[in-house]
Amino acid sequence: MIKKTIGVGVIGLGTVGQGVAHILQTQGRRIEEKTGLRLELRKVAVRSLSKKRDIFVPKRLLTTHPMEVIKDPRVDIVAELVGGIEPAAAWIRTALMLGKPVVTANKALLAEKPERVYDVAEKKHIPIGIEASVCGGIPILRSIQEGFASNQIAHFYGIVNGTCNTILTSMSQTGMTFSAALELAKKQGIAEADPSLDIDGFDSAHKLAVLARLAFRMQIPYKKIFIQGIRGITAEDISYARELGYAIKLLAIGKNLPGGLELRVHPTLLPLDHPLAGVRGVYNAVFLHADQAGDLLFYGRGAGRMPTASAVLSDLLELAKELSVGQFRSVQSLAARHRGRVLPMDRLVSKYYLRFQVADKPGVLGNIAKILGRHSISILSVHQKESKETKSVPVVILTYGAFEENVRRAIRLIDKRKDVREKTQLIRVEA
Amino acid sequence: MIKKTIGVGVIGLGTVGQGVAHILQTQGRRIEEKTGLRLELRKVAVRSLSKKRDIFVPKRLLTTHPMEVIKDPRVDIVAELVGGIEPAAAWIRTALMLGKPVVTANKALLAEKPERVYDVAEKKHIPIGIEASVCGGIPILRSIQEGFASNQIAHFYGIVNGTCNTILTSMSQTGMTFSAALELAKKQGIAEADPSLDIDGFDSAHKLAVLARLAFRMQIPYKKIFIQGIRGITAEDISYARELGYAIKLLAIGKNLPGGLELRVHPTLLPLDHPLAGVRGVYNAVFLHADQAGDLLFYGRGAGRMPTASAVLSDLLELAKELSVGQFRSVQSLAARHRGRVLPMDRLVSKYYLRFQVADKPGVLGNIAKILGRHSISILSVHQKESKETKSVPVVILTYGAFEENVRRAIRLIDKRKDVREKTQLIRVEA
Repeated sequence: MIKKTIGVGVIGLGTVGQGVAHILQTQGRRIEEKTGLRLELRKVAVRSLSKKRDIFVPKRLLTTHPMEVIKDPRVDIVAELVGGIEPAAAWIRTALMLGKPVVTANKALLAEKPERVYDVAEKKHIPIGIEASVCGGIPILRSIQEGFASNQIAHFYGIVNGTCNTILTSMSQTGMTFSAALELAKKQGIAEADPSLDIDGFDSAHKLAVLARLAFRMQIPYKKIFIQGIRGITAEDISYARELGYAIKLLAIGKNLPGGLELRVHPTLLPLDHPLAGVRGVYNAVFLHADQAGDLLFYGRGAGRMPTASAVLSDLLELAKELSVGQFRSVQSLAARHRGRVLPMDRLVSKYYLRFQVADKPGVLGNIAKILGRHSISILSVHQKESKETKSVPVVILTYGAFEENVRRAIRLIDKRKDVREKTQLIRVEA
Repeated sequence: MIKKTIGVGVIGLGTVGQGVAHILQTQGRRIEEKTGLRLELRKVAVRSLSKKRDIFVPKRLLTTHPMEVIKDPRVDIVAELVGGIEPAAAWIRTALMLGKPVVTANKALLAEKPERVYDVAEKKHIPIGIEASVCGGIPILRSIQEGFASNQIAHFYGIVNGTCNTILTSMSQTGMTFSAALELAKKQGIAEADPSLDIDGFDSAHKLAVLARLAFRMQIPYKKIFIQGIRGITAEDISYARELGYAIKLLAIGKNLPGGLELRVHPTLLPLDHPLAGVRGVYNAVFLHADQAGDLLFYGRGAGRMPTASAVLSDLLELAKELSVGQFRSVQSLAARHRGRVLPMDRLVSKYYLRFQVADKPGVLGNIAKILGRHSISILSVHQKESKETKSVPVVILTYGAFEENVRRAIRLIDKRKDVREKTQLIRVEA
């Protein structure tokens, strides 16, 4: 059945939902000219019928029951833009069971419980568009799936959370503390009132799981991802790192190594001339290495109404095209038969930035060096810093590659020493 | 007719052709696992049967007659990897007439005489894959066509020629002259023995035409593109620009303005914190602004055997998928009904970097400023530089936005003055 007019149903009229509705309402003619397809907004599920919104949607299109959107026979594609694992997964399953393709920006679901929707999608052979779930307006998932179709992706580094990157950028540019930068981001409407999902790294981990699934074509055990946020980063760390030629970024890191996968989210020292080091503020970027295409960087707006709506629209148009010719061809790409084996963090080999706060007296540094040496941790450089305090001084050590397990063990011993005055700061170094 | 094994014919076994053959020979199983499709190399046209090559292709697959590749009934898709306008266009037309989709990296043809292949492609409704024609391994064309499907692209800036970027990077990093940097690039195998196509901007103009066609969805009159290469850039310009906070890059610039298109290739001053300013060496990058998705940057390897072959493969797989389901859906995207109107360069409004070499005596600067003022050119800043010479000194002026026509007229007058000792250097400033 060849259809040229495709009915769209939207569940959720929040930031992204309003962006999608706005584009459908105002850009219809342009889209039709460009693609030959007409997308019509036919049903929208909202929580409240009376709420004031930035855009106008005719009352007759609104319902408070998501299932009415899904089951409406005039709705051909369903856009789930509410988020959260349930009931979103149930809505998506129902749509798929009815043979309706789905577009979703739901990274929590796709990361933590992907089988709840992928199993049905594969069984019924109905596609799910997920471009909007990672890095908003950047067409990174489409590029990974189609642009590097013949490549193996060896590893990727992503700055995938605009809130964290804004906070780290402010700290770096003005020397302000983490708390001050967080407050500023809240005032600017960038950080949420409860910022934990962002600053503790969970949002980045969700995106890491989705990226890794597509890049490595494996099921990703979300719980095995190592997650550390940016609360512990001080203005001093950022300033010391820069003196040594590094920026500190919260990275989502995925590596496909012969022994298994490395999947980790944590603050990371990156050389200042690395393409990711210059990514500032709310911008997102993903740097990846593909075996044939080489090093690549994708950079753009990772969140916000219109960038994310733009990604939703790219999927809606893709699926509308497939509906219009009666052939779903994007289904295959969701398949991930094998379960990825995640390497334990203890066995990680990395370089480290270690900041010690030690008594300002002879011999202390020697003792620390001795402990590091006993744990097979080689020192690349040592930097004693000036201090406002009189009795203790900060010492920064950069190491060569060492086992994480050994580094943690050494630090536990070092932190027990009387001449060490604070818990030692550990930040991993990449590239 | 559902086919799962697709026969590939290759015309041209140069750098890219060998890369494509190598991937088909070594990655077949991985590609089949990933996509469910088997691509088989079935015929290859070469100029010499006896030439030594880096890869082995069985003798029985080789021919010196491209038409044998195209007409071979076991060849389903033809990859044209020779380049040049004719006979490449004739080969592509023949393939299309036979109903065989084509993949090509032929930017000269796509830029200068696109109608020679697009007309047949549209009439016969057979697609042409062109990802490899611009920016090698970066999936930029796919992103423009699909990733921003609902967007209007307002403008883009591209560093699309690795040779020029390598030369400018060397000059910037070491202070060497243009000639020395060109010689170095030749020794490194980056610049061709005859480097004119690259350093005089023609290669960049080809890529600009292809990018603009897709980004603005218009036919691009290639001859209307303003083209200026990098021969005239001196080490002093690069050093002065950096002191003022700018890098000099050869940019391919496309803007879709209400009055028409700006299409120009020329050396450009970009602020050092612009995402393109840090793109070094052989790397390519395209920065674009889409109305919904916002600012985006795509960065990667723009040339070379494997990156370009990776782009060819992404198209081969896309077309193989379409062949396998018996539906070409990428045809629509080639269509560009309207002919773009290109704004004349004279009417360009830009900021300018002007370097004058003037007699070291009072009043000279005042005279220059007077002439600029009479031509409605406002001065942003003036910088007198130290000089090795005794009798004349370099003076750099940055202007506010001014009409190109006025600037050129003013410079013609200034260059006639006796106290002006050299032809004035003019470099446009963006962003």
